[in-house]
Amino acid sequence: MRYVAVVGSGECSEELARLAYEVGSGLARRGVVVICGGRGGVMAAAARGVQETGGVVIGLLPGTSRAEGNPYLTFSLPTGLGEARNAVIACAAEALIAVGGGYGTLSEVALALKRGKRVVGLAFSFPQLPGIITAATPEEAVEKALSP
Amino acid sequence: MRYVAVVGSGECSEELARLAYEVGSGLARRGVVVICGGRGGVMAAAARGVQETGGVVIGLLPGTSRAEGNPYLTFSLPTGLGEARNAVIACAAEALIAVGGGYGTLSEVALALKRGKRVVGLAFSFPQLPGIITAATPEEAVEKALSP
Amino acid sequence: MRYVAVVGSGECSEELARLAYEVGSGLARRGVVVICGGRGGVMAAAARGVQETGGVVIGLLPGTSRAEGNPYLTFSLPTGLGEARNAVIACAAEALIAVGGGYGTLSEVALALKRGKRVVGLAFSFPQLPGIITAATPEEAVEKALSP
Amino acid sequence: MRYVAVVGSGECSEELARLAYEVGSGLARRGVVVICGGRGGVMAAAARGVQETGGVVIGLLPGTSRAEGNPYLTFSLPTGLGEARNAVIACAAEALIAVGGGYGTLSEVALALKRGKRVVGLAFSFPQLPGIITAATPEEAVEKALSP
Repeated sequence: MRYVAVVGSGECSEELARLAYEVGSGLARRGVVVICGGRGGVMAAAARGVQETGGVVIGLLPGTSRAEGNPYLTFSLPTGLGEARNAVIACAAEALIAVGGGYGTLSEVALALKRGKRVVGLAFSFPQLPGIITAATPEEAVEKALSP
Repeated sequence: MRYVAVVGSGECSEELARLAYEVGSGLARRGVVVICGGRGGVMAAAARGVQETGGVVIGLLPGTSRAEGNPYLTFSLPTGLGEARNAVIACAAEALIAVGGGYGTLSEVALALKRGKRVVGLAFSFPQLPGIITAATPEEAVEKALSP
Repeated sequence: MRYVAVVGSGECSEELARLAYEVGSGLARRGVVVICGGRGGVMAAAARGVQETGGVVIGLLPGTSRAEGNPYLTFSLPTGLGEARNAVIACAAEALIAVGGGYGTLSEVALALKRGKRVVGLAFSFPQLPGIITAATPEEAVEKALSP
Repeated sequence: MRYVAVVGSGECSEELARLAYEVGSGLARRGVVVICGGRGGVMAAAARGVQETGGVVIGLLPGTSRAEGNPYLTFSLPTGLGEARNAVIACAAEALIAVGGGYGTLSEVALALKRGKRVVGLAFSFPQLPGIITAATPEEAVEKALSP
């Protein structure tokens, strides 16, 4: 079983939501377990893509209440860690796909790169960051995240 | 969907393993998602009970490697938090069932009680602890953990 | 330099506050750095004992704001970890002195015992816990916490 | 009392070490409490600058042993959190000064920016990052970190 995190902002444009949805859907089609931060925006769109494709998506929430999770999560885990849950996401996934993203996303990307993990950027907000693998489409992002 | 954690020591007697197995199996039969620490002993026995009953068990591992998980987990999440992952387990579950247990288990129980959660002890090593609901059998432990 | 944590409830009786004050004062007189959770009750009383004796007390706060700390801390560190900061307190101190205490305190005690650390109970709320060293006076608690 | 973190890599060039030393020294001269990750490289150089100027520097270590800290720390706190201690550093400091830095440093910077904190880069390895305040000298970095 493989685990990939889809990371991005809690609020996002329709275009980023569409990309995140396709990433979630593509990962689910390949049987990959998707990890995300469980909130709105990119996280919700990716989770919806997974759910509607029949896959599994696990949300690692920053707060203490399951109710803060989006409605598309297969499983939700309130961590109570606040922003430190970003480190858990970067640890739990084998690879990350970053869609858009703000500073919280950047912290997840940085922690994953620090651990030597594959990080793919799709319309990533910090494209100049060394170590990021750039993808032009959701399909390409999924493929590059799963490359050996 | 309901989430219950089964907590206990990483090494345990055959009798505790049997109890943990039955608890995992009973929770799975009721469609409850089981959370555990993902390691050996009680955690492995409970996970095996879930797996062999066709349920879902999520292991929240203390280290950074998925390889440290037992082979019965449906999903495993290395947190990289060390012992602080005990706080995540106590936060993520709605109720806890403690089987046997050492000091690590006690920390999970204490954190769950602190959060006002239901904690059921089955052959619990610290039965005198105020706030613990005692169960005599795995079946009773499952029922009491799920009481409203 | 030695580090000892004084742990206890965020609200407490005058008698427990007096004991915590004396423990803080006694540790400070011996040049020990005191670690605490930084909030009220036992934590504030211990910190006041340290401050008025000219020692150093570091508060590890659960939230994200320094303003939640009591006014007696020499240094305060908001961790943003919620209850998981209990694991940090148990990790950062070489020994613990538990004064009174509720379930949060018990989690710190359990995590310290799990790590093989010396834990001294003074009017400890869970005196029957195996592994606790009992002290009858603040002075005795300090001495037993510092025994080699 | 003010708290500023100096963040950077665990190994660094002599030139970066000189900059970090001057930053630590400058913060100490202004009575600022310095927070760092407690290890080598930039962290050790900044701590040495603080120590030799008579200031206070607190090291928040990733592991469970105080022995992993550099010898210049006034106080060291093993957190046991692994990389998640980066989130604690970003939470505990009011402002950050990043000297050089790799992905771990970038995660601290991102988490601090996410929390709306002032982040000053001095020979920062990711200068193109939006939101970073650039400084040309250690003195300028200290002044900009402390600007209201």
